[in-house]
Parts: sequence; structure tokens; C-alpha cells
Amino acid sequence: MEIRVMANILEQNDRIADELKAALGAQGIFALNLLGSPGSGKTTLLENTLAALKDEMNIAVIEGDLFTSKDAERIARQGVPVIQINTGGGCHLDANMVRNALAGLELAALDLIIIENVGNLVCPAEFDIGEDCKVTVLSITEGEDKPLKYPLVFKQAEAVILNKVDLLPYTSFDMEAACEDLSSISPGAALLLVSCRTGEGLLDWYSWLRQRIAQKKTRSQADD
Amino acid sequence: MEIRVMANILEQNDRIADELKAALGAQGIFALNLLGSPGSGKTTLLENTLAALKDEMNIAVIEGDLFTSKDAERIARQGVPVIQINTGGGCHLDANMVRNALAGLELAALDLIIIENVGNLVCPAEFDIGEDCKVTVLSITEGEDKPLKYPLVFKQAEAVILNKVDLLPYTSFDMEAACEDLSSISPGAALLLVSCRTGEGLLDWYSWLRQRIAQKKTRSQADD
Repeated sequence: MEIRVMANILEQNDRIADELKAALGAQGIFALNLLGSPGSGKTTLLENTLAALKDEMNIAVIEGDLFTSKDAERIARQGVPVIQINTGGGCHLDANMVRNALAGLELAALDLIIIENVGNLVCPAEFDIGEDCKVTVLSITEGEDKPLKYPLVFKQAEAVILNKVDLLPYTSFDMEAACEDLSSISPGAALLLVSCRTGEGLLDWYSWLRQRIAQKKTRSQADD
Repeated sequence: MEIRVMANILEQNDRIADELKAALGAQGIFALNLLGSPGSGKTTLLENTLAALKDEMNIAVIEGDLFTSKDAERIARQGVPVIQINTGGGCHLDANMVRNALAGLELAALDLIIIENVGNLVCPAEFDIGEDCKVTVLSITEGEDKPLKYPLVFKQAEAVILNKVDLLPYTSFDMEAACEDLSSISPGAALLLVSCRTGEGLLDWYSWLRQRIAQKKTRSQADD
């Protein structure tokens, strides 16, 4: 019973997600689903990314949180359009929430939509929300054992961002083990070591993102 | 439809949780539900707590994880009985999982059972698993905005442990804001500042836990 209901929810979600992919694809918009634990640094990464890229492309942000509009307020200060989704206690975004949020954005003007999911290494990984790719942020203060303990969210990521590397000297984080586990779980994923605090590694992240967006454009032009 | 199914699941869960509370209470066992994000330091807190208290009381541990027995292996090295629950991707423990795990422990010998929940600030807060009290761990590297963003897990906690305070000088964590928000969300909760790495504040945590266990014993003796 319980399982059937869950299957229905996922099926319905995937149908809406496919519609969103088609609609965004038709407008030439790249959609990124940003995942990670509470406090891994998703919003700070986003602030940095917006500051670096907003003059070369038109970006909007959708912020997913249980409650509060704290993150949306931070993003709004970067001068880009932002929509806050409050799940009211729900543990992940779904495609329908994103569809409703998209109705509040002027899509024709956009190149990139970044959707920051609810801080949670478990549930958001199960829901496609119409994105072109998932990127997962892990802060080194969370420990090197997390990829094996929460594999799905790392397996699905095209890029894994290891954040807060400036704190490496003050922790016992085992970088070798983390890299080994990540490449066994998600062999194709890019692994980017960054510190949003010092700026270390961020240029590589921006390059990766630019290339990934360009790749989609090239593919869709080839399809035309 | 979806809501009714969820209500049934919670009702059934609470019924089992009540049975567990009665059964553990009858044996004079205190049960603690330890909550927090992935990497907040729950397992390290547990290792320290076991080392400090295992000679003065009989403790067993139940470890909740999606996959792997990494945490149970760490706990076993402390020489206490430990049962690993793997949820197989599930985002929280429930009372039925704990009931099954308890069947593997020799209850008559125990004073305290600590249940480390799945690393997740959202879903575990909704499920009573038969505990006497919930304790939530927040590491300061997660940021001071988390209590307002994930209020339920803090509201339900009798004690909030602010972990990794040794990293305060290297972060922009706003302690004043964190304390203010925590006391507005959960005015009665004890707030304990600790570093599991340096040992700072741990004695206060052990005292709090000893007192809380003694309080239950006094109450149940008064009820007899």
C-alpha cells in the first residue's frame, strides 16, 4: 500500500519533471539542482557564483527551504531574480513546487536557473525537479565517510564540490579516502576542491559550469 | 489520500513507540534519541560519551544509517553492545526498526540506550522511536541560521549540543544569534557548547545526561 502510493508520487513527479525539462530546453535555459547537507555551504557557493557569472549570463535562483526566506534574501542582494519555495516542513523539493516557482520568473530572459534544494543528503536525491544536472556540495567538516553513507546524492551528481577546504588543517578529514570513495561511487563526476571563504578553487567551478552549459547548447543546436 | 496514508503511518509508529517506552521504562532503561545533520559529530560525541560513562552505567547503542556499518564499527571499538540499523535509503528511523533492533540486545543488563538517528535535520524529528528524550547536535560549521530553518528538530530537543566550537576562530559563526534563535524556538532546552575534538564542554554534557537519567529514575520510583 505504502509502496504503491510512493511509486505513484514518483511517477507523477517524473512526468512533471519531463515537462519542465522540455519547456526549459525549448527556451535554451540550463537548470541546475544544487544539493547538500544543511550548512554544507550551498547558499554561499551560490552567492559567489552569482557575483562571478551574472554579468556574462542571465541567472535566476529558486531557493528551497522548510521555513524562512533567509536564503532568498541573501540571493536577492546579488541583484538576480529569486523565488523562495517554503516546503512547510517537507524534506525535499519536487517538480510541482518548481513548476509553480517558474511561473513567477520571466523565463524568456534567462540562460541559467539554479535551484538550491532543501538541506538534506537523503530525500532530495530521489526527486527529479526538471534539472539538466545535479551538483552536490559536501563540506570537509562533515567528514570523509559521508559519500559511502549517503551514496545516492553523490552517485547522481555530475560534479561534487568539496567545500571549506580552508578548514583542512584544523580537522582530521581524510582527503585520500574521500576522493577514493567518491570516484568509486560516481566515477564520471568532476571533483572540485573549493573554499567559498577564501575563494580557493572557485575559478575551476565557474569553468566547469560554463563548459557544462555550453555543452548543452551545442547539443541542442545539433538536434535542431 | 497521501495525507491519510501519512497519518496512518504516524499513528502506527506512535503506538509502537508507546509500547517501547512502557517496556523500557519497566526495565529502568533510559533511551536517548540523538539527532543532527550528516557530519554534525553525533558518532564522535557518542564515542566520547561511552568512554566517559561506560564504567558507571551499562550502555548499549543503536546506530541508524542508510547504508554501511561504519558507525557501528566505531562504537564496537568502545566495547559496548551495538546494533546497526540500515534503512536501505530511508531517511529516518521509526519505532518498528528500533523494536527489531532491541530484540538483539540483552535489555535486563542495561541502564541506557543511545540511538543515533540517520543524519538528517528534517525527517527524523517527525518520528517518535520510543525515546525518553531527544538531543540535537548542531556543529558550528553548519552556520547559525540552522535553528530557524529547521525548527522542529530543535524545538523537540531537551538539549542542543553546539559542537566543533574549536573551529569558531576560523568561521563566521554568530554565537549570539544562534543562542537567541535557539532560546526562542526551544526555551526550555539546555544549550551545551562542546568540542569533541578538544574535549571542551564535554563534562557539562555528561553531567546533564547523568542528571536527566537520575530524574527519570526518581520519577518512576515516585510512581511505584
